Amino acid sequence: MRIQVINPNTSEAMTHKIGLAAQAVARPGTQIIACSPADGPVSIEGHFDEAIATLGVLEEVRKGREQQVDAHIIACFGDPGLLAAREYASAPVIGIAEAAFHMASLISTRFAVVTTLTRTRIIAEHLLQRYGFSELCTSVRCIDLPVLALEESGPELIECMAEQARRARDEEGAGAIVLGCGGMADLGRQLSEAIGLPVIDGVAAAVKLAESLVDLGLTTSKHGDLADPIGKPFKGRFAYMSR
Amino acid sequence: MRIQVINPNTSEAMTHKIGLAAQAVARPGTQIIACSPADGPVSIEGHFDEAIATLGVLEEVRKGREQQVDAHIIACFGDPGLLAAREYASAPVIGIAEAAFHMASLISTRFAVVTTLTRTRIIAEHLLQRYGFSELCTSVRCIDLPVLALEESGPELIECMAEQARRARDEEGAGAIVLGCGGMADLGRQLSEAIGLPVIDGVAAAVKLAESLVDLGLTTSKHGDLADPIGKPFKGRFAYMSR
Amino acid sequence: MRIQVINPNTSEAMTHKIGLAAQAVARPGTQIIACSPADGPVSIEGHFDEAIATLGVLEEVRKGREQQVDAHIIACFGDPGLLAAREYASAPVIGIAEAAFHMASLISTRFAVVTTLTRTRIIAEHLLQRYGFSELCTSVRCIDLPVLALEESGPELIECMAEQARRARDEEGAGAIVLGCGGMADLGRQLSEAIGLPVIDGVAAAVKLAESLVDLGLTTSKHGDLADPIGKPFKGRFAYMSR
Amino acid sequence: MRIQVINPNTSEAMTHKIGLAAQAVARPGTQIIACSPADGPVSIEGHFDEAIATLGVLEEVRKGREQQVDAHIIACFGDPGLLAAREYASAPVIGIAEAAFHMASLISTRFAVVTTLTRTRIIAEHLLQRYGFSELCTSVRCIDLPVLALEESGPELIECMAEQARRARDEEGAGAIVLGCGGMADLGRQLSEAIGLPVIDGVAAAVKLAESLVDLGLTTSKHGDLADPIGKPFKGRFAYMSR
Amino acid sequence: MRIQVINPNTSEAMTHKIGLAAQAVARPGTQIIACSPADGPVSIEGHFDEAIATLGVLEEVRKGREQQVDAHIIACFGDPGLLAAREYASAPVIGIAEAAFHMASLISTRFAVVTTLTRTRIIAEHLLQRYGFSELCTSVRCIDLPVLALEESGPELIECMAEQARRARDEEGAGAIVLGCGGMADLGRQLSEAIGLPVIDGVAAAVKLAESLVDLGLTTSKHGDLADPIGKPFKGRFAYMSR
Amino acid sequence: MRIQVINPNTSEAMTHKIGLAAQAVARPGTQIIACSPADGPVSIEGHFDEAIATLGVLEEVRKGREQQVDAHIIACFGDPGLLAAREYASAPVIGIAEAAFHMASLISTRFAVVTTLTRTRIIAEHLLQRYGFSELCTSVRCIDLPVLALEESGPELIECMAEQARRARDEEGAGAIVLGCGGMADLGRQLSEAIGLPVIDGVAAAVKLAESLVDLGLTTSKHGDLADPIGKPFKGRFAYMSR
Repeated sequence: MRIQVINPNTSEAMTHKIGLAAQAVARPGTQIIACSPADGPVSIEGHFDEAIATLGVLEEVRKGREQQVDAHIIACFGDPGLLAAREYASAPVIGIAEAAFHMASLISTRFAVVTTLTRTRIIAEHLLQRYGFSELCTSVRCIDLPVLALEESGPELIECMAEQARRARDEEGAGAIVLGCGGMADLGRQLSEAIGLPVIDGVAAAVKLAESLVDLGLTTSKHGDLADPIGKPFKGRFAYMSR
Repeated sequence: MRIQVINPNTSEAMTHKIGLAAQAVARPGTQIIACSPADGPVSIEGHFDEAIATLGVLEEVRKGREQQVDAHIIACFGDPGLLAAREYASAPVIGIAEAAFHMASLISTRFAVVTTLTRTRIIAEHLLQRYGFSELCTSVRCIDLPVLALEESGPELIECMAEQARRARDEEGAGAIVLGCGGMADLGRQLSEAIGLPVIDGVAAAVKLAESLVDLGLTTSKHGDLADPIGKPFKGRFAYMSR
Repeated sequence: MRIQVINPNTSEAMTHKIGLAAQAVARPGTQIIACSPADGPVSIEGHFDEAIATLGVLEEVRKGREQQVDAHIIACFGDPGLLAAREYASAPVIGIAEAAFHMASLISTRFAVVTTLTRTRIIAEHLLQRYGFSELCTSVRCIDLPVLALEESGPELIECMAEQARRARDEEGAGAIVLGCGGMADLGRQLSEAIGLPVIDGVAAAVKLAESLVDLGLTTSKHGDLADPIGKPFKGRFAYMSR
Repeated sequence: MRIQVINPNTSEAMTHKIGLAAQAVARPGTQIIACSPADGPVSIEGHFDEAIATLGVLEEVRKGREQQVDAHIIACFGDPGLLAAREYASAPVIGIAEAAFHMASLISTRFAVVTTLTRTRIIAEHLLQRYGFSELCTSVRCIDLPVLALEESGPELIECMAEQARRARDEEGAGAIVLGCGGMADLGRQLSEAIGLPVIDGVAAAVKLAESLVDLGLTTSKHGDLADPIGKPFKGRFAYMSR
Repeated sequence: MRIQVINPNTSEAMTHKIGLAAQAVARPGTQIIACSPADGPVSIEGHFDEAIATLGVLEEVRKGREQQVDAHIIACFGDPGLLAAREYASAPVIGIAEAAFHMASLISTRFAVVTTLTRTRIIAEHLLQRYGFSELCTSVRCIDLPVLALEESGPELIECMAEQARRARDEEGAGAIVLGCGGMADLGRQLSEAIGLPVIDGVAAAVKLAESLVDLGLTTSKHGDLADPIGKPFKGRFAYMSR
Repeated sequence: MRIQVINPNTSEAMTHKIGLAAQAVARPGTQIIACSPADGPVSIEGHFDEAIATLGVLEEVRKGREQQVDAHIIACFGDPGLLAAREYASAPVIGIAEAAFHMASLISTRFAVVTTLTRTRIIAEHLLQRYGFSELCTSVRCIDLPVLALEESGPELIECMAEQARRARDEEGAGAIVLGCGGMADLGRQLSEAIGLPVIDGVAAAVKLAESLVDLGLTTSKHGDLADPIGKPFKGRFAYMSR
């Protein structure tokens, strides 16, 4: 089984980290193909970055489709381009935010999200609403560090995240913590030890859900609103997308 | 006052029609600048088309910003790139779907949407949920004609829409009808006459809301999640977006 | 265009202030007719006051109808009698609470309300729920000053409101503030300067929405639940309402 | 124990019928005082009628208060003036719509409402939403007879109601039926026999809830938003309400 | 009238206390039959305890049915086995949590729950959601004392509850307090005096609702999802339940 | 890895079928231990059956815990005893209804459930609400065959299910179908072929989610409301549960 893990931003160090996190939980027969677009923002910290990055996500999906991968993972916590990718791909597509929410809801009655910037909280909240998890999530908490600052993680970073997680645990009754950024994929174990709660990394969660769907022979429903995009002309730079 | 009306698809005939509809309701001192991207799909009929078109929307917003327009309108019923545009622009940005929903809720207790393809219904439903109008909308009804077929509108088209509108009125108690596609901007009056209900075209509604915000001296809150995008490098094709 | 602005309470000073606020944002051709009932409470600070004041609102609507105004505005933050007025009038009717909520949702992802008395918070919360804005409003915050104390506004008043607004901004992520009382119609600019967020006054917002509906040729749907009241006898003091 | 049952409309025949229905279920020691305003509409079939009738409701509450009744019931299915009356009274106040919804939810997982005019459906739907019962009610169904036509009830009327009730039962899984009009207070048994489901009349339900609150020594919380109205001048016709 | 009050745990002291609380509010002609299962946990402090106790509840319902009681009350705040009991019984069945929520919503716009252990809060929250009261309840607050510690109630216990109740009143605007445990049935008056709000005990509330349903001739709808259990073999220990 | 699959009813043929379905999708290293209680109903078709069966589920969980299984699956579509089992077990516990809902939401925007008896629809609807999937599920559709009739499945059975599934697909826009009964575990492929939509069997889905959690090192959060049951005496038949 080959699973394409797409880092929607263009930071190779993060792509590498995400690839390692994915491979670490993949089962023996699963090959992880970590990739990221050549074009786009080095980090995704708002709707604008996300909108531009979505184009890169779709082009990586196209490559993955040509390589006949068995599943695609979108490894940015805003799940950018998820429904567009489900239309465009024939293999299943999983976003790391949805993956983490699903797993968290299987092991707790209430969970919290710890993410990077306050300004991206609304993105997570909109996803929780659309996916149906608003009532299960006690809060989306922010440490207000830029995404790329996660690269230089030290004990202060973990402590900073732990502080938010403890407040969610003690003040709101959260029973599990979701890591709210693909760049946090290597921090789960340390955070879990610091706070005594299970911590869910969306990259790892998405790998297991992707394997699961493949094992079950399930892929995106092609009846209705996620069917292949309707063939039509695209103009200019996107003429190659004409079908 | 200058209002930029962006048709997110690349069909010039539709851009022209939308521009006329906007100008028809603009007040004397308002200049409508209708435009559309050079690159992208000729129509938007799903998440994939929408994701690609969003890039064009943002580039048009950039141009509008350089021309110091007073407001931007995104004239596709999925409001593609709305929050990204609000980050990117300093002037207010209005989507035609939200505009139509707001106006409909001022003149009826319940409204229905009549749109083109069944496969795009989910896009409208997600917007209704995010904006808070789910309970006010009785249904999103589809005539299952492609967007570009609206260009050749004849009496059959109106009758087809009227049939759906009447069912919403009689079976569900809808008191007003929202036109669910920018390409329907010229059909409101005929449909209203056919069914005896007010009909709201989002393009016209958005022009009035844009004028209203400008008059009130209000623009997108730049505190918090719609602040200007954080400056950062963009790679490759999008290097010009680096800030 | 003539817009009737009804102050539902009987305080003439407030009617005057509201009228000025309305005229200040009306466009050149719009005439504002500010009025208030002869009979009823001098301020509206609860359900009881509101219920009595509603009678006055409807009688003012009747007068406005006879004067063939183009739109009616109900300038009390509880939108008293809104749906009754929509039945009774043929021109569109706008409440200042709904107007402010609509405008706030066009320029922020989340807004807060700052109002007078804690005991009226429930009225705003019920409106948010009915209109669909509950998820968009982070909180309704109260300064616990009586409505008429707003007449003697000084710097302390602004600071008192600013304190609540800052908490909504910093603790809850509100990006815009809605003024929760018609009597605050002259305080928007000062509050906005104090807190660095856009502030929406419902009176001003309602004037622009009223102008917008008139421009669009839209009025309350007379099909269904907002149709003209069914003709019937009224007894006693209200015999003159028999139809 | 003395319970005041207020028919908000001015039809004495209906007041009489409601009084009988209330007395029929009151326990031996309970005295029913049925009354209706001298002034106002002969029936309540929309928001306008309801707004006018609310004044009469409050004046009847005032009388009941002077007579030191133990509880007040508002016997119109829109619960007009309910929260205003709770402020104004010191004894508990029950609306017949809320009473019926509460009872129905104790004996079924889902119930339906059968009421008179389609145009009043929105009133019931708004109440269901505000009280929290939206998910428990499968539909509000209308027989499209005017309220006063209920006075001449014959077998056709029951059959007309039964047809709607059967559809709620068979198509939507409703397990109980709520009578959606005070004027239907004498029809419960016949309807129940016709359809084989329990039928809840709000007048009867409200009497039992009123007795219950009195027995429990509970009355409206006077802390917070239902506290006594704030004392203030009322002008003109309503000067007598100044406190 | 005979009402069976089932204490789902096996602590006889608590059964006695609950029986007294029930009898104290029952009207003259009502006989309270307090009982508890012979088998099961001495207190219910989680889903596991509740699941085991449910079996005892159903066996007590069986006994009550054989004694032809007029109504059954389940006197544990999680309403364990409520829908199963409604299937199994022919007389009406009331849970004390639902009873308290219903009564609280008749006398306040918002109420709070004060209960024992934080770990049981989720049970109350799930009930609030299922019954439709989530929006009406400001919070479920816990004093973190075990259920059986309520037996040794002293002034400290009341003060501990009062502290939580005051915070709900002052910080959240709760107008009434619901006692969140059957074992608190004797504490309502003291708590109410301490905090100046009405306090609702579910045992007392359930007795009045049970009397009300009996007076109205209403019982669980036997059409649909609460019909008598389908006859079938039960194996092993439960063979006696075969029908 | 060893996964215990608990059939909550006592029909061995169904246990066998469920075990086969589980083994069919388990990966090579996973051992399926299918079991069912010795005591309880032969099928679960309502709340009463479910309440009795829950005891058996918990006793099977106890056995599984003693055998140190890696995960437990509750293979009845009502997920009976799920939260109690999560308290009681240390390994993760998955219900087949939740498993199917999660998987369905990864491959479609809207799904429908096809189940056996109309009277059990409410159970599924309550689960959808509690888990957050209400908005994603278009309807719960019933074929009104008893659970055990599934044992004699023939082409008529598939056609009967297909008819409901097609209506969900064509009238409601469902993109995937969830099988609403453990006894349907062998029917997914045939139904999928008949209707052209992906079909999700909860037993298979649960196996993959169980494997996933084990791979991720995640189990039920033991902080808060799913912590081990509090130690206490149990009386009578359940004395062996005292801790």
